[in-house]
Amino acid sequence: MFQLYHHPLCPLSRFIRLSLGEYGVEAELIEERVHERRREFLMLDPAGQTPVLVTEDNHVIPGAGVIAEWLDEILGESLGIHRLLPVSPRERVETRRLMAWFNDKFFGEVSNWLVTEKVYKRFMATEIGSGAPDMDVVRAARANVRHHLRYISWLAQNRNWLGGDRMTYADLAAAAHLSSVDYLGDVPWDEEEPAKQWYQRVKSRPSFRPLLADRAPGVAVNPIYTEMDF
Amino acid sequence: MFQLYHHPLCPLSRFIRLSLGEYGVEAELIEERVHERRREFLMLDPAGQTPVLVTEDNHVIPGAGVIAEWLDEILGESLGIHRLLPVSPRERVETRRLMAWFNDKFFGEVSNWLVTEKVYKRFMATEIGSGAPDMDVVRAARANVRHHLRYISWLAQNRNWLGGDRMTYADLAAAAHLSSVDYLGDVPWDEEEPAKQWYQRVKSRPSFRPLLADRAPGVAVNPIYTEMDF
Repeated sequence: MFQLYHHPLCPLSRFIRLSLGEYGVEAELIEERVHERRREFLMLDPAGQTPVLVTEDNHVIPGAGVIAEWLDEILGESLGIHRLLPVSPRERVETRRLMAWFNDKFFGEVSNWLVTEKVYKRFMATEIGSGAPDMDVVRAARANVRHHLRYISWLAQNRNWLGGDRMTYADLAAAAHLSSVDYLGDVPWDEEEPAKQWYQRVKSRPSFRPLLADRAPGVAVNPIYTEMDF
Repeated sequence: MFQLYHHPLCPLSRFIRLSLGEYGVEAELIEERVHERRREFLMLDPAGQTPVLVTEDNHVIPGAGVIAEWLDEILGESLGIHRLLPVSPRERVETRRLMAWFNDKFFGEVSNWLVTEKVYKRFMATEIGSGAPDMDVVRAARANVRHHLRYISWLAQNRNWLGGDRMTYADLAAAAHLSSVDYLGDVPWDEEEPAKQWYQRVKSRPSFRPLLADRAPGVAVNPIYTEMDF
């Protein structure tokens, strides 16, 4: 069985967990607190970030983008027309553009800030920034999420799914990052009905269920986090 | 002919210029100052970052990673055994891991900081941070570059090229980011002889020549920037 080094609220890990679920692949989840910079973990991947996937024959595949490409190359064809990275060059560009949008831009402007301030800081060592959330950072992230939610609404109104006619990695990446932010109660769903309806569709997929069961010790979960009709 | 929206010292744009050179593809270079957030540029790519490639039939391919994957899918086979993204799954993982290392990690810890502080700030609007370089940021980037240079030395001592037996996107990405930093005189080459020798090999490639001819108005160029024996 694959092993996935992850953190329950790490949005990049959640993207890979959703993807593995869609491929029908099980993985043993190993929780990693990357801020501890554990030696054995850094030996696996010197970048020291989650997620890291390890195959049965100890092949180490580090990083959400690298794992997604590898999974498509190994398993993509098995999904037929539901391939998560579609085959035509134009669709591949659009899927990868949106994957990068959420895994890099949304991560850098919203989800990594909120998860770091509200979750990771609880178990960070004092000298690298443990403590109460910096509310300036939280407020900036909450302002940024509005712009992203509006963009998701625009995509969802102009297309069946975010990247085009079918569900792709673009939807899984977007939903993964939003799910971490939603756990913390920081998605203003009522402002963007099209984004909300699109998220309900992704949230109802079987691959999403394990994410809804996650709990981070000591971090209150948004009461509507698990509800399908929120 | 392709068009490439870039900035002469943007390391991500330089990675794509090197790649286009290796594929033997010419592109019309259009200088973009992303901090101006020009409306026409944001219409091409709402992420508003260089590089953005536009094909003859107006297909827009935004972002270094997306462009590199697209070029491999369209032109990769034409390079035969010199393919920049090798064909075996393990080599693809390693090439993509190192591409992400330099385009994300090195960019976020070194090259974007130095280019922003020393180059972009010269023509930024006052309200978004124009002015003299923040020397704390410059010092932090100069400390970080040492760690990366040591890692490059380690890779170069254990392999023929950074990713393995042949030159790949990994080498082009690493060299592109280092070249921007080297323009500014911030690479301590003498500390890491194996990294220096590897860089000399990439620097001597014909694809590298256009980068050595770049000049950013008002920014002094390191005197050894163009020398092969530095």
